[in-house]
Amino acid sequence: MNTKTIPFSRDFVEEIEKTTPTPFYIYSEEGIRNAAKTQIEAFSWNPGFRNYFAVKASPNPNILKILAAEGLGADCSSLPEMIMAERVGLTGESIMFTSNDTPDEEFIKAMKLGAIINLDDITHIYSVERACGRLPELVSCRFNPGKAKKGNVIIGNPTEAKYGFTREQMFEGYSILKRKGVRRFGIHTMVASNELDAGYFVETAVIMLELVAELSSSLGISFEFVNLGGGIGIPYKPEQNPVDIKVVSSGIRGACRKYLESNGIPMPKIYMECGRMITGPYGWLVSRVRHIKKTYKTYAGLDACMANLMRPAIYGAYHHISVLGKESDTPSVKYDVTGSLCENNDKFAIDRMLPELSPGDIVVIHDAGAHGHAMGFNYNGKLRSAEWLMRTDGSAAMIRRPETVEDLFATICWDAV
Amino acid sequence: MNTKTIPFSRDFVEEIEKTTPTPFYIYSEEGIRNAAKTQIEAFSWNPGFRNYFAVKASPNPNILKILAAEGLGADCSSLPEMIMAERVGLTGESIMFTSNDTPDEEFIKAMKLGAIINLDDITHIYSVERACGRLPELVSCRFNPGKAKKGNVIIGNPTEAKYGFTREQMFEGYSILKRKGVRRFGIHTMVASNELDAGYFVETAVIMLELVAELSSSLGISFEFVNLGGGIGIPYKPEQNPVDIKVVSSGIRGACRKYLESNGIPMPKIYMECGRMITGPYGWLVSRVRHIKKTYKTYAGLDACMANLMRPAIYGAYHHISVLGKESDTPSVKYDVTGSLCENNDKFAIDRMLPELSPGDIVVIHDAGAHGHAMGFNYNGKLRSAEWLMRTDGSAAMIRRPETVEDLFATICWDAV
Repeated sequence: MNTKTIPFSRDFVEEIEKTTPTPFYIYSEEGIRNAAKTQIEAFSWNPGFRNYFAVKASPNPNILKILAAEGLGADCSSLPEMIMAERVGLTGESIMFTSNDTPDEEFIKAMKLGAIINLDDITHIYSVERACGRLPELVSCRFNPGKAKKGNVIIGNPTEAKYGFTREQMFEGYSILKRKGVRRFGIHTMVASNELDAGYFVETAVIMLELVAELSSSLGISFEFVNLGGGIGIPYKPEQNPVDIKVVSSGIRGACRKYLESNGIPMPKIYMECGRMITGPYGWLVSRVRHIKKTYKTYAGLDACMANLMRPAIYGAYHHISVLGKESDTPSVKYDVTGSLCENNDKFAIDRMLPELSPGDIVVIHDAGAHGHAMGFNYNGKLRSAEWLMRTDGSAAMIRRPETVEDLFATICWDAV
Repeated sequence: MNTKTIPFSRDFVEEIEKTTPTPFYIYSEEGIRNAAKTQIEAFSWNPGFRNYFAVKASPNPNILKILAAEGLGADCSSLPEMIMAERVGLTGESIMFTSNDTPDEEFIKAMKLGAIINLDDITHIYSVERACGRLPELVSCRFNPGKAKKGNVIIGNPTEAKYGFTREQMFEGYSILKRKGVRRFGIHTMVASNELDAGYFVETAVIMLELVAELSSSLGISFEFVNLGGGIGIPYKPEQNPVDIKVVSSGIRGACRKYLESNGIPMPKIYMECGRMITGPYGWLVSRVRHIKKTYKTYAGLDACMANLMRPAIYGAYHHISVLGKESDTPSVKYDVTGSLCENNDKFAIDRMLPELSPGDIVVIHDAGAHGHAMGFNYNGKLRSAEWLMRTDGSAAMIRRPETVEDLFATICWDAV
């Protein structure tokens, strides 16, 4: 069980509405900072532990700044994400560039920033050389364990995943890199998305640390870091439990002892690239009920739609819903909670029991702080919403303004025909 | 069987690349005009027949202009779509405003434009009155047939659909409208999406025309139009056949005779709101192969990704793929054709047999002219691509420029914290 709390009041929402009407996002600076700190504390046994925040989860420079202040790096997957990280002062090895099907210009930018380049494919050794004229001092390779690891529900089976090197390619790849003069090595995998089983991450660490031991001894190289990826899930449903990061950490610590220390292999830094667990539970989509409709079912139509939050529509994902001021009312009515997109899957919830709703009620959609605003689109001409940060002192800072029709039309060539 | 042809040459693509690198969209003006004409011809028996192009399918004003010149109206579902239609000169009853969970400001805009307002819910009669101070002269109501109609695969079961009035509400709704002084009536339904069975549309027409007959006689009103919606599919797969629009038309004509003419009910204008069949087959996403990757499978990584075309990733939709200059080569290699997004579902095709590919090959993704660019997002910091129109004279016109990093960052408040 986890309690779906809301740190802000109706007054806080109404104050924001004076500047931007609903729908909008609110993030909690305190929640985000605490999540970052909790993870760092859990890994305090590992000198150099670092979480590279997956920028894609919540690509707002203000959130990156806060996380940078807590010591996190940026996991970037594209040129714009690297540019954003650079603009908030994250450069050099504070950026992990993990991409796939990578264009030359992104390798060039990563090299210029001194970012850690995490190669997705063995041929990218040559792509980097060709694009940049040389290899970086420090290189990481992404491992796809194939049949050695069962995938989880969201990310699918590793043998069907487009990412990473095979086991044989890992040996060949590091051998080529060593021959080409690379002297600093990292290693990476990412085989989960939104996984709640702590054991899954320990299992993954075991696979990686065994491989590190083998690569180290057979190639005579040592690894500065092992990046175990992200994928730590969050309990979207009230009856789910969060991943106990201390359990993950101590399992990984045990695996390090067993596979590395006992074989005299130097302890690498543990890196992760968690996004969802850092911002997910600390972002809320705030909307107002626009219409109640009764036909074959009862519908509560919001002023938010799937352009603001895609996960329920495209993944069938559960997001908990609260009604401000009706938290203690009995959930007595079964609603489909809908948006206004002309897509029948534009529903935030189906057959959800909620307190009786009226137009104007403030509906808060929980756990929207990761892969929420970031995945929004403009289908049906819908505009993406503002983002607000609730500062630790309780004040509100607008960290993204709402889109306008002119933003939507910005790329149109009006009189081409 | 349908032949997946490409009207443009490698030279045409390379000419465009001098201005905007791949990926980009190319639309065929000739194809779009012909599709519009074919539908109009098929319905020439019905004076006043009109297709209101579903703007959401391809929301580009240049395409709207071309279609307006062919006599089409605009089916708009939001304020920005109405603004776009207005800017290209489509106003008044050339706009059908079909929305759901509609905000007041959209009713107000539709009223100002003199658009046909198609109500989604019986309570919206009062919403329009409250928002606009009056009802429009002409009102349409959207019918949801519930159990009377089995849904198709994409749109789902009508009883689970958020749209429209129940049968009882149709009688009550028109009765209220009549009492409130409305004198001109239309009626609408939309119960299909991407349906290839011509019979499905005739069945739908039968349900609607029976209802029109009943409503007309029991309420003493007459209908100016029957809007049968859109939903006419296109053959994404080469082995599929296009819907024969003449068969649809003659079936509807027969139903009009049976249910209306034989009962002395005046013939309404038939309206439709087809988008996909008008632009879908006449838009192509053009991309270049960036990398070939061999791990547990063989991957062809493109410079396009699901930000450019979401349908394969989110619906598992088939889009045919051709390789320019290799059209007659044997499809001898099985590829997963991928984009560079950090989402394992960012694949344009899975296990697709194609001619052997090399980096730099020009890959053309067919049937991307509807719900293609329109559904793009910026996840992973990806930028949406340019759109080009191949004019009937063979020249190229850029109808949308590519997004830039500054576009992507336009709404960010950089120094909020």
